[in-house]
Amino acid sequence: MAGIKRRKISVIGAGFTGATTALMAAQKELGDIVLVDIPNLENPTKGKALDMLEASPVQGFDANIVGTSDYMDTANSDVVVITAGIARKPGMSRDDLVSTNAKIMKSVTQEIVKHSPECIIIVLTNPVDAMTYTVFKESGFPKTRVIGQSGVLDTARFRTFVAQELNLSVKDITGFVLGGHGDDMVPLVRYSYAGGIPLETLIPSERLNAIVERTRKGGGEIVNLLGNGSAYYAPAAALVEMVEAILKDQRRVLPSIAYLEGEYGYHDIYLGVPTIIGGNGIEKVIELDLLDSEKAALDKSVESVKGVMAVL
Amino acid sequence: MAGIKRRKISVIGAGFTGATTALMAAQKELGDIVLVDIPNLENPTKGKALDMLEASPVQGFDANIVGTSDYMDTANSDVVVITAGIARKPGMSRDDLVSTNAKIMKSVTQEIVKHSPECIIIVLTNPVDAMTYTVFKESGFPKTRVIGQSGVLDTARFRTFVAQELNLSVKDITGFVLGGHGDDMVPLVRYSYAGGIPLETLIPSERLNAIVERTRKGGGEIVNLLGNGSAYYAPAAALVEMVEAILKDQRRVLPSIAYLEGEYGYHDIYLGVPTIIGGNGIEKVIELDLLDSEKAALDKSVESVKGVMAVL
Amino acid sequence: MAGIKRRKISVIGAGFTGATTALMAAQKELGDIVLVDIPNLENPTKGKALDMLEASPVQGFDANIVGTSDYMDTANSDVVVITAGIARKPGMSRDDLVSTNAKIMKSVTQEIVKHSPECIIIVLTNPVDAMTYTVFKESGFPKTRVIGQSGVLDTARFRTFVAQELNLSVKDITGFVLGGHGDDMVPLVRYSYAGGIPLETLIPSERLNAIVERTRKGGGEIVNLLGNGSAYYAPAAALVEMVEAILKDQRRVLPSIAYLEGEYGYHDIYLGVPTIIGGNGIEKVIELDLLDSEKAALDKSVESVKGVMAVL
Amino acid sequence: MAGIKRRKISVIGAGFTGATTALMAAQKELGDIVLVDIPNLENPTKGKALDMLEASPVQGFDANIVGTSDYMDTANSDVVVITAGIARKPGMSRDDLVSTNAKIMKSVTQEIVKHSPECIIIVLTNPVDAMTYTVFKESGFPKTRVIGQSGVLDTARFRTFVAQELNLSVKDITGFVLGGHGDDMVPLVRYSYAGGIPLETLIPSERLNAIVERTRKGGGEIVNLLGNGSAYYAPAAALVEMVEAILKDQRRVLPSIAYLEGEYGYHDIYLGVPTIIGGNGIEKVIELDLLDSEKAALDKSVESVKGVMAVL
Repeated sequence: MAGIKRRKISVIGAGFTGATTALMAAQKELGDIVLVDIPNLENPTKGKALDMLEASPVQGFDANIVGTSDYMDTANSDVVVITAGIARKPGMSRDDLVSTNAKIMKSVTQEIVKHSPECIIIVLTNPVDAMTYTVFKESGFPKTRVIGQSGVLDTARFRTFVAQELNLSVKDITGFVLGGHGDDMVPLVRYSYAGGIPLETLIPSERLNAIVERTRKGGGEIVNLLGNGSAYYAPAAALVEMVEAILKDQRRVLPSIAYLEGEYGYHDIYLGVPTIIGGNGIEKVIELDLLDSEKAALDKSVESVKGVMAVL
Repeated sequence: MAGIKRRKISVIGAGFTGATTALMAAQKELGDIVLVDIPNLENPTKGKALDMLEASPVQGFDANIVGTSDYMDTANSDVVVITAGIARKPGMSRDDLVSTNAKIMKSVTQEIVKHSPECIIIVLTNPVDAMTYTVFKESGFPKTRVIGQSGVLDTARFRTFVAQELNLSVKDITGFVLGGHGDDMVPLVRYSYAGGIPLETLIPSERLNAIVERTRKGGGEIVNLLGNGSAYYAPAAALVEMVEAILKDQRRVLPSIAYLEGEYGYHDIYLGVPTIIGGNGIEKVIELDLLDSEKAALDKSVESVKGVMAVL
Repeated sequence: MAGIKRRKISVIGAGFTGATTALMAAQKELGDIVLVDIPNLENPTKGKALDMLEASPVQGFDANIVGTSDYMDTANSDVVVITAGIARKPGMSRDDLVSTNAKIMKSVTQEIVKHSPECIIIVLTNPVDAMTYTVFKESGFPKTRVIGQSGVLDTARFRTFVAQELNLSVKDITGFVLGGHGDDMVPLVRYSYAGGIPLETLIPSERLNAIVERTRKGGGEIVNLLGNGSAYYAPAAALVEMVEAILKDQRRVLPSIAYLEGEYGYHDIYLGVPTIIGGNGIEKVIELDLLDSEKAALDKSVESVKGVMAVL
Repeated sequence: MAGIKRRKISVIGAGFTGATTALMAAQKELGDIVLVDIPNLENPTKGKALDMLEASPVQGFDANIVGTSDYMDTANSDVVVITAGIARKPGMSRDDLVSTNAKIMKSVTQEIVKHSPECIIIVLTNPVDAMTYTVFKESGFPKTRVIGQSGVLDTARFRTFVAQELNLSVKDITGFVLGGHGDDMVPLVRYSYAGGIPLETLIPSERLNAIVERTRKGGGEIVNLLGNGSAYYAPAAALVEMVEAILKDQRRVLPSIAYLEGEYGYHDIYLGVPTIIGGNGIEKVIELDLLDSEKAALDKSVESVKGVMAVL
């Protein structure tokens, strides 16, 4: 009777990251796509959606792609990705950024929950740990269904730099991070490999440190190069990998920002940790034994996240 | 001794279309990518290239992607795609547009030819028929190795609208156009099908005419929606399909802008016609018997193209 | 609570075609796969399933693949593909083949229906028109959820031969058939194209007739070459295209064997016709105006199918 | 002038493994395929090639696939894969197997070298270490251009079993082996991970040992299940991953059977070691510091390989 229906993915925020996320999800035929932005931007949102739809016959994917400012169109989404929010502008305090984006998260979350009460939400908006926490609280969703993205992107950058350093395929490089995004990132270099071989045995430590440092500043490197705006290709790819893991129930081992209730000794905080992502969202937080130095770095990262959360 | 080397694709112009072309070519692992723009834009070009490179570990493709303003980096490209050029601004006359872009084409072509004397060039810059002609003349290349893009994009839009009209997969819709791009497009609806069934038997003629008309204005529709800038997803997809046909020597039957020496009764003009695209570029121009009405429309399209060329 | 679950595909019959179908469906990550054969062949079935599962880390697909002789394992499949049945052996009459395979269809269908009452069934077993009818009757399913495969395979062969004839990409060749499989096939050459151009204008009629004739005998050509057994790569590819159209709700225009209730003037028969395949199975039978010669050929094809059905 | 030509891959031996290798290489559009077997099997070889070619329009790949018994058809291959050879039959001594397959290797190699003097050869035939050595000596090729496959397959099996044990995506499991194939395999469990986390911290040691042991016997497990014949899906996938790494010059870190001249303390032997595979074949042998127990196991593996080579 019912028949098979396509999955449905809504992407909130139709800037470069949101639009690229929509494109990459459609290319993989993960489902139909609804790209949402504010009424003022409705026409450009529709324009981007139509343009990528017009790419579909050539790229060979079947996906309906709709641009809209009406959350009714997002009804019954399986996954909703939040890329909405403002970027920090010159002269803006961190607290202003946090409170502005928190307001956006709350309003967006209300709309999402109203139209897709069973969906899984993935948050990209910065500062992402605090914003994911905000969405979690506002949604009333179980913790498994609200996830933040940072580690897939951070490790992607790390892997890219390592692949360049060693002149090897990116397919064989893995990386591992904990903690917050960017400056607060806690890299676990000892869990990072080229073809399974620990990087510490392949790259001199000062070079490896430089790569870690470059990863930490990876977002800023792109911002500085672009001159106007921030990265969107790699962030979109990261989001789509998480969406795919959910929609195909893959039980991937991916770093993600998860709600902790005692894991790693932290409570009531969203933090970057290794997780299993599948059809139920975050299916598990994987706990690792940390070295003292790693635990100390993670503590520091938690302090930083809590500092942001205090603004809320 | 030599071993296998990756193919190399250079994309001239790192705006949205050029950057998206680079991304889509990299996603398909068609080769290494060099994204080129002017020195003033070198940093943003590098930023875009790095951002998409950082997407590669997640998307699972191996391709070096470099942003540059130095044509030395394009040396020995197999295919070069030209997306550079200015868009028509309010108050600018068509002739100004033509002469400005023609200057850009000449300068870009000199650099391309100098560094990649054996490459195949694909031109997207508008007005594309005249710009392809300019590149052809400036390059001194055989006609097989200078190709303009318009028909793949025009038919992609047409196919999208038909798929929506009939609520069918885009995979099963085909379209067919001749002549110039956009307003000068000559659609051959009788060669357009859904699952092999002529569209004329599936869609009432007034609806089909409306779809043709919407296709003709398809670029403008996106421009109007975006408010600032023009389409880039579908144009990039179209370019990459042509690049792929060449680099995989596929002998695809694709509409492209080809140099005519008597075909369809025209001489010394670049015009949209059905072609076979393979490892040698345009391997053949396919000649069709046209209805009188079609021939008349094509004549009109040729007049329009010649009008633009007269400016040069 | 519910979360996202993978789709589930069961393939009945673990011979070469069934196994290749399982592989190709898994490669596309269409869902988890259950490969079923009789208890006597349980171990080889498990062996094939395990072997292809062991290919998954290398090919990069996530799909559970299980070999079994227990229909319990097929429970709640979304799509079930029937490849089971015997091939005609030397000395065996057609009637014996029909009645033996009909018995197999009935028994297999009972098991399928018992464990997956909401599934969509695709039948490949020959003689496929009559076997699909048998499954339909035995299942008690609505006609939309019982489909036979023949036209996707027949047109695939036709497209291959045309692509060779014209030295063009298979991507740009389309074909169109009606009626029964193999000898009973009614090709609509006028609806067959290269890049949208009618083949009749590109290939001399005697060559085109030879290609049609070769297509008609296409199964036999492979049987004769192999010496032992029949084709399985192209049949599996055809089945998987239909499975994909259903599981991704693509609304593809595909030739398939559908139950007719007056369409084309026939009643209570399964026959090859153009259809729309989507999430509900056969979403529509497309009716075409036929030339007198085509209608006559189709009548003959119907007679042939009815002759087989009379055995039942 | 020359234009772009497709890569060319020849597969020697058209049994299940050879044919599946051809299919998987064609699906990835790695190049044109020549499938070769002895004159007695020319027709079945042609039949398999044609059958998979007929799958190409449906699966959407462009690749010419030819079945032949004439090595002329393999001329100028970029990569040649050797799957030819007999399997050990009941009552056959190991020495008989070795000397029979060595004869086949010599004769096949002569033909390969004659027609494709610049190709890269990948050997699958068992006992694979000795057979790769035989091909190397017979070919006169540099060591970089003769490679044996075993580790990609062994780790694929290991990864499959681990993914099942932990109920995780195969995409996130890695494995690492050294030494000979099968019983002679030296697993480096400490270099094997789930999402970068060492397996030793995730799986109890007795379970992990059982998985290692199952991997070691992985070929036999399939042989026993099939009852007749041996694995072909996973072996073919492994071969194609190596072919792809070469033809796309990916510089993958893959375990392969490489010629050693002092690495790991061994000389004039082909042995399974971590390598970098790219456009030049084996671009590097990666040397690791081994634990004493690992070195001892590797010594034992070397003894075993030398025992087989002594037969030659």
